[in-house]
Amino acid sequence: MPSLPDVEIMTIGDELLYGQVIDTNSAFMGQELAKLGLRVRQITSVSDRADEIVAALDLARQRAQVVLMTGGLGPTKDDLTKHVLARYFGAELVLHHATLEHVEGIFRRFNRPMLDVNRQQALVPANCQVLFNAVGTAPGMWFESQQTVFVSMPGVPHEMKYLMTHEVLPRLQQHFRTPPIEHVVVQTIGLGESFLAQQIEAWEAALPPNVKLAYLPYLGGVRLRLTGHDDGQPNLRARMEALLPSLQELLGEHIFAEGEIKLEEAVGQLLLQRGLTVGTAESCTGGLLAHRLTSVPGSSRYFQGSVIAYSNDIKVRELDVKPETLATHGAVSEATVAEMAEGLRRRLGVDVALATSGIAGPEGGTPEKPVGTICFAYADAHRTVTRQISFDRGRQLNVEYTTTMALNLLRQEVVK
Amino acid sequence: MPSLPDVEIMTIGDELLYGQVIDTNSAFMGQELAKLGLRVRQITSVSDRADEIVAALDLARQRAQVVLMTGGLGPTKDDLTKHVLARYFGAELVLHHATLEHVEGIFRRFNRPMLDVNRQQALVPANCQVLFNAVGTAPGMWFESQQTVFVSMPGVPHEMKYLMTHEVLPRLQQHFRTPPIEHVVVQTIGLGESFLAQQIEAWEAALPPNVKLAYLPYLGGVRLRLTGHDDGQPNLRARMEALLPSLQELLGEHIFAEGEIKLEEAVGQLLLQRGLTVGTAESCTGGLLAHRLTSVPGSSRYFQGSVIAYSNDIKVRELDVKPETLATHGAVSEATVAEMAEGLRRRLGVDVALATSGIAGPEGGTPEKPVGTICFAYADAHRTVTRQISFDRGRQLNVEYTTTMALNLLRQEVVK
Repeated sequence: MPSLPDVEIMTIGDELLYGQVIDTNSAFMGQELAKLGLRVRQITSVSDRADEIVAALDLARQRAQVVLMTGGLGPTKDDLTKHVLARYFGAELVLHHATLEHVEGIFRRFNRPMLDVNRQQALVPANCQVLFNAVGTAPGMWFESQQTVFVSMPGVPHEMKYLMTHEVLPRLQQHFRTPPIEHVVVQTIGLGESFLAQQIEAWEAALPPNVKLAYLPYLGGVRLRLTGHDDGQPNLRARMEALLPSLQELLGEHIFAEGEIKLEEAVGQLLLQRGLTVGTAESCTGGLLAHRLTSVPGSSRYFQGSVIAYSNDIKVRELDVKPETLATHGAVSEATVAEMAEGLRRRLGVDVALATSGIAGPEGGTPEKPVGTICFAYADAHRTVTRQISFDRGRQLNVEYTTTMALNLLRQEVVK
Repeated sequence: MPSLPDVEIMTIGDELLYGQVIDTNSAFMGQELAKLGLRVRQITSVSDRADEIVAALDLARQRAQVVLMTGGLGPTKDDLTKHVLARYFGAELVLHHATLEHVEGIFRRFNRPMLDVNRQQALVPANCQVLFNAVGTAPGMWFESQQTVFVSMPGVPHEMKYLMTHEVLPRLQQHFRTPPIEHVVVQTIGLGESFLAQQIEAWEAALPPNVKLAYLPYLGGVRLRLTGHDDGQPNLRARMEALLPSLQELLGEHIFAEGEIKLEEAVGQLLLQRGLTVGTAESCTGGLLAHRLTSVPGSSRYFQGSVIAYSNDIKVRELDVKPETLATHGAVSEATVAEMAEGLRRRLGVDVALATSGIAGPEGGTPEKPVGTICFAYADAHRTVTRQISFDRGRQLNVEYTTTMALNLLRQEVVK
């Protein structure tokens, strides 16, 4: 069996060095490569200057046997990567007819005038294998040079993702005959990383030597990923899955799903299974709760609608919150979110409702209710459940965390 | 005048290479360094292995005269940076008393037991200058070695930001005297990169030699960034800004702002200036439009509320869409979004309203209205304006693009 290659990721573009764009491509690539068992040796971000790209390529091939590049494939003159690679690998640019037809098709479809610079996107170095980019105009390119594989992809994230998934990863698997590796992901919520680690310490210590556990924290919880390496025995995946019931016993309802699935998807599946419709009444979350619920394909089968009530007036008129409740308890109170959830249920005629109201910040805090004071509620035909939490890590994270906690409340209540 | 140093940013940690953490530190550092006129030559992310950190340092000092490192300064055993640097610069670790007192103070304040690993955070290589970290336990370290400055900072973003702002940037300013560099950003919307480039070709060609133009595309438009280098003449920034009126003439209302500002912020400022309140009636965007509007701090001064109407029933009951309109034109039609926007205006009593309805996909398309058929509308007291577009790049991007186009319609109509 050939030894596994190290990979270097090279992201190209002055905008990365100026900090005007955050490099999210590398993290996606790193995750996907790790799933194949390939190690990323280094991530290198370089400018759009030809000499610096070449210098980085010379060094990368000394460190790694695979160099994955993104960026610099656009139609404008600061996009140099293709020309640099043609020179680097000593090839002419030639017209790739399938790409030209594809690009022409895109411009026809959108009824846009096709310029010469667009036509040039179908030029590729003669000695590369073209990786068809179904979702954009710049093709990917695969080069093999002295035992090293070089791949160039567009920097636009969804185009890079398409090419990684459909072209690059399968070809790497084939080229390097990567040994089988299995991943089992368990989604937990509501426990911090170190507390979680403590809870499952003995379970983790008893894992077989070929199974590794990784803690992948996110805002509100931790994903647990088991990576199983080939040990020559059959049924690796089944043996890994057999480890889960004892984990489930330790963590109970803190586990919301197995597999790469988002909380809003897990919630959607529960609602579908139970034939329940849902709606939201949102103040501080400003629509993010509805957005997360509706980001799931097919969510129209259970999601009906929402009322975003930023102003108190709308809370009263559209959600039937009692003015006395607002006067006595304030807009950010468990009493108010309870009435918001109940009001929404009645108004929209949905089975279950979520409501939120809080001080997201940076303004609006008071000594009694500082920024980060957040209330949310769940209501169904039988009961209303409310929560108050305190969480302040800035407006954006406060809102995100609140939506996660509200979705989790929905999940917990629906299964009761 | 000494020549300008190039900077290399080095972020250290396996979690970056595995893609478990997105490197946002580099972008912050890149932005701040650009403001001082320092060029980032390369960003390098390396593992927690000592030999690989040393190899990266050896190469970095060949490329750059300043090497800024983050990460690997925590108290756990995979945090190696300090030990590697002590060896690299040939120094013993010595106790830094001010840091020890600071760390002890932090543990006292939070009433946490202080472990030996915490005490070790006050050890620093004898030949560094300690950069006091007021917001964390790991100090920054400044080394000078053979004309190169090496700085090590914690990887925790808010600690790195504190040290950059209060220690590193002022010291770099003092250490290197750098001529001014200026960035002017122009936000455009509604033109693709290549079409935009064609529109401003002559303008771009006539730019002074010390001013560079970069195209930074995003979903729905392009940010244009002018970078001006010192040419020995005064008023660089003013001369760059004098280039903008002719750009404005070429691009007209495709320019929505100057400077680093988001579309939703620009829209918010317009609404505030005109004293207008806003609300949204959303079908396909499912709350994202409201979320973007409310993501702006202080948006409660103009944003009132929304109705998310995924089901036709809610469109009729909560937004007064006529059943005949739905029956004749369908839910995804300019007629329906017009009634949604008008209905929301009346219901919520807002000055201006936006509405959306479309087939976000992946399901729900028909031969007449395929996935990506999207309608949106603007309504105020005097008129209703509708648009129909066709855009299909997957559910998530379809929804994002629709919100951007709807916000842009609001911007265009409000200024009329």
